[in-house]
Amino acid sequence: MIVSGIKDFVISPGSRSTPVVILLAEMAKNNDLNLFIDVDERSASFFGLGLSKKNRRPIALICTSGTAATEYASAIAEAKLSQVPLVVITTDRPMELSNIGAPQAIDQMKLYGSNTKDFVSFDLQTAVDTIKDYVTFETQRIVLAAQKRPIAPVQINLPFRKPLMPELNTEDPIVKKIAAINSETRLNQKFIDHLSGRKLVILAGPEVKDYHQELLALAQKQNIPVIADVLSNIRQNSPEVITNFDQIVKNYDLSENSDYRPDVVIRFGGTLVSAPTSRWLQAIESETEIINVANNGLADHTLSSNETVDIDELDLIEQLTIEGLTSEPQFTERLLKLSHQVANYQTRYLENDFSELMIPQILDEHLPEDANIFLSNSMPVRDFENFYQGKETRQIYCNRGANGIDGVVSTALGVSAFSSDNYLLIGDLALFHDMNGLMMAKRYDLSLTIIVINNNGGGIFSFLPQADAKEYFEQLFGTPQDIDFDQVAKLYGFDYYQATDQAELIASLSTPKHQKIIEVTSDRIKNLQDHRDFDAGLKKELNNYVKNNH
Amino acid sequence: MIVSGIKDFVISPGSRSTPVVILLAEMAKNNDLNLFIDVDERSASFFGLGLSKKNRRPIALICTSGTAATEYASAIAEAKLSQVPLVVITTDRPMELSNIGAPQAIDQMKLYGSNTKDFVSFDLQTAVDTIKDYVTFETQRIVLAAQKRPIAPVQINLPFRKPLMPELNTEDPIVKKIAAINSETRLNQKFIDHLSGRKLVILAGPEVKDYHQELLALAQKQNIPVIADVLSNIRQNSPEVITNFDQIVKNYDLSENSDYRPDVVIRFGGTLVSAPTSRWLQAIESETEIINVANNGLADHTLSSNETVDIDELDLIEQLTIEGLTSEPQFTERLLKLSHQVANYQTRYLENDFSELMIPQILDEHLPEDANIFLSNSMPVRDFENFYQGKETRQIYCNRGANGIDGVVSTALGVSAFSSDNYLLIGDLALFHDMNGLMMAKRYDLSLTIIVINNNGGGIFSFLPQADAKEYFEQLFGTPQDIDFDQVAKLYGFDYYQATDQAELIASLSTPKHQKIIEVTSDRIKNLQDHRDFDAGLKKELNNYVKNNH
Repeated sequence: MIVSGIKDFVISPGSRSTPVVILLAEMAKNNDLNLFIDVDERSASFFGLGLSKKNRRPIALICTSGTAATEYASAIAEAKLSQVPLVVITTDRPMELSNIGAPQAIDQMKLYGSNTKDFVSFDLQTAVDTIKDYVTFETQRIVLAAQKRPIAPVQINLPFRKPLMPELNTEDPIVKKIAAINSETRLNQKFIDHLSGRKLVILAGPEVKDYHQELLALAQKQNIPVIADVLSNIRQNSPEVITNFDQIVKNYDLSENSDYRPDVVIRFGGTLVSAPTSRWLQAIESETEIINVANNGLADHTLSSNETVDIDELDLIEQLTIEGLTSEPQFTERLLKLSHQVANYQTRYLENDFSELMIPQILDEHLPEDANIFLSNSMPVRDFENFYQGKETRQIYCNRGANGIDGVVSTALGVSAFSSDNYLLIGDLALFHDMNGLMMAKRYDLSLTIIVINNNGGGIFSFLPQADAKEYFEQLFGTPQDIDFDQVAKLYGFDYYQATDQAELIASLSTPKHQKIIEVTSDRIKNLQDHRDFDAGLKKELNNYVKNNH
Repeated sequence: MIVSGIKDFVISPGSRSTPVVILLAEMAKNNDLNLFIDVDERSASFFGLGLSKKNRRPIALICTSGTAATEYASAIAEAKLSQVPLVVITTDRPMELSNIGAPQAIDQMKLYGSNTKDFVSFDLQTAVDTIKDYVTFETQRIVLAAQKRPIAPVQINLPFRKPLMPELNTEDPIVKKIAAINSETRLNQKFIDHLSGRKLVILAGPEVKDYHQELLALAQKQNIPVIADVLSNIRQNSPEVITNFDQIVKNYDLSENSDYRPDVVIRFGGTLVSAPTSRWLQAIESETEIINVANNGLADHTLSSNETVDIDELDLIEQLTIEGLTSEPQFTERLLKLSHQVANYQTRYLENDFSELMIPQILDEHLPEDANIFLSNSMPVRDFENFYQGKETRQIYCNRGANGIDGVVSTALGVSAFSSDNYLLIGDLALFHDMNGLMMAKRYDLSLTIIVINNNGGGIFSFLPQADAKEYFEQLFGTPQDIDFDQVAKLYGFDYYQATDQAELIASLSTPKHQKIIEVTSDRIKNLQDHRDFDAGLKKELNNYVKNNH
């Protein structure tokens, strides 16, 4: 593993994994390795997911045999979809114990099915001369495979016979490294010429981290509007950046108005948080050239891309910058003014009483410049998409591949492991789901401020058609759990604050404690009404504005 | 589902599963159905596992799409190995949203690989005339398949398009039921004749519930010794029942002494809790006829069975009883006396000071006659194997298929759902692992007394070779979590007791509260020494006894 360049290991204790973890602990003495121990494999795997999301490098999960390995399944499904290179090392019983009733011997071969892109099982105890060379090569190959596009988890299965205690103090083997090769493509010059001067929009989706500064620089230099997903990490107070496009297209049918319809959309990044924006793409695709750039494994569930460019994004951005790609100035101005209008409405509206809607804005104004903000599914990320303006120095994270509400606490803690200013915005249900994840904060003294919006149940469901099934709603969807978060804080040694208004929330954010739970009590019915009222007012405002500015 | 005979449903809320759960809630009005709602799918699946273990009938798990479905993986692996007929209903995004970046759309086809024995995906919204008949038939077939030997979980995947709200108040469809067919075989008469009068032992492993009374009656009537695994549920104060065979063969090599070596072992049930007994089988197999009876899918990881009989156990027991199978009386007497000797030693020894060793005996003496006792892996089930005598009216449970320490609380609660006297013996680490499971006790007011042996970490590892890796032991294996169980009890509304000696443990067991956590603080090093001391004394005693009674 060391030769493959992995530095971070999340280990869940067990017996079968003994040879691997003992040797790792031994190697950690003379090598720059980070070993994390987490007894709950589900939490451990999401924690590793968070580490890798943060550090942009492969990390290894190591567990013992049996259901320990199956506990990883959810985080692996998430990693597959959010393209995180988890290297999953499952230790196993030897072949001669399979299928014959031996304890703790489940079938671990290709355990994660299509959620891992590659699989090997090494019988390290085979008495064959070439085994060491083979394993050295194959380990590097599979770790490299995990990092190649589409980035995805891989599984290495290691069956071990007893005795499980390895020999210590042996020398590290000398090994040859495999070089990673990057493919390079140049874009057709004609293609760039054909774009320039037309009504252009850049769409920056989630996970454009590796090139977000270059993309923003292009937009700013060339005055091209950027529709910025909350997870793009491009959001900031810059005139070209549109942070409220979801609000616009949700409340006004922009696709019908040719004044606001782009000729070309250049799309970067993954699946958008904003469903209305996705629907807008579908509505305009017959009249607009929608170019999907390589990222996200070329996937586009909106089926609106009518052109796909398989090229390194940085190369493309560089070429577009050099060639001086421009957009039609009137179109840019019109679109940005519309966005500005919505921003004004929002500012006025949010001077009203304290509500869930206000939280993204409060956090935006009061969190440190370089905060890591982890957003839970499902309401927090949506509210942030709508009401968060952003700072370029901040990083926003979310498990937005499989969109689970599981493992959120652990993933946030993984993200937080090497930083000091970390925040998690989460609902009561998702926090409960991965409450065990808090143990890692306690054991490793990790810094995290958790803002839990406690509306006692699943807030998202009030917005969905299920809300009409009143008879079953609370039992099947609302599912109030009546959790006492003060007790939760006590159990894990967190400080606890209750915030019933804006001033209390701001005050509790600014206390110097580094492990806090701030509970904001909310009400699902009121929250639904707040969102509806906001949208109704905006709808009116947008219609008037467009009518008067035609 | 109703037509397939399923009565128990464990539902984890979500959006995609709306059509199924709403219709179920509607049907529950006029049908005798039990719906449980558990927001944590991992806990939910283990809870369902427990329900099915208790009720001996298939239960359905229902979840939404995405990682929710992967959360079931561990309980399904356990169910596969412990032969529990879980019917796993995963709702899914429709085909047209797969592999193209749609949110929450993971690949759910055959998600659990070889841990489910059968799989179907129904497109219920297909506009084909025969779809209703097909689904009705296929659902009954797959639920029946789950219950046939080898009993195993099955997956039904249900992709749904929006809108997700079903039509209510429609009539139940009229459906034809499929009849289950039992195969019957008669045993060769010669075979039975050949067994009678020889040195016979019956070995009753785990999960012989369906015929444990008949098996015990046979042994009692014919004076055949029964080596009773703690999970056989045959253990009780009856002269033929040997409850301490693990202690005997661990401390004295019985295989070398022909006085104590049976000619024939008739083996029922699954993989034994006792590893020393398994090793004893391996040691005697060249000179002993070891007959493996159908159960447990014919599996025998000891590879010691030299004969396998594929027959219904009840039929076999009935035939053996009718034909008057006997054992050599001197052999029976000799073996039972040896066991009695060990029991005497144990009684004398356990008058010493309070220790983990004493707990099974204390529970045996002070729990109600009809208690359900759930044993966690990994130390509790081992200590019970050694130190629990038993009552025929009690039921002992354990997740002893994959032997995980995950999901133990939820499984125990599932077992407890329809009974009042329920007990869980568990270590601190396993309790932490599935602490979320306690939410079900709170929500459904389930009765459970948890005796948690808190030795602050993984007690089992002190007994394994890893204990020699002193430098890494606490970090990698001991893993102390410093959990405050008083806080845990407060969080979930349990009463909390601390028991530092025998009297306190007995007193706390007898309080009338129905949701309790009783914490017994222990020490891993002392516990190891206690076990070693016990064995050393017994070894001496056994050697003397056998020498003097040759």
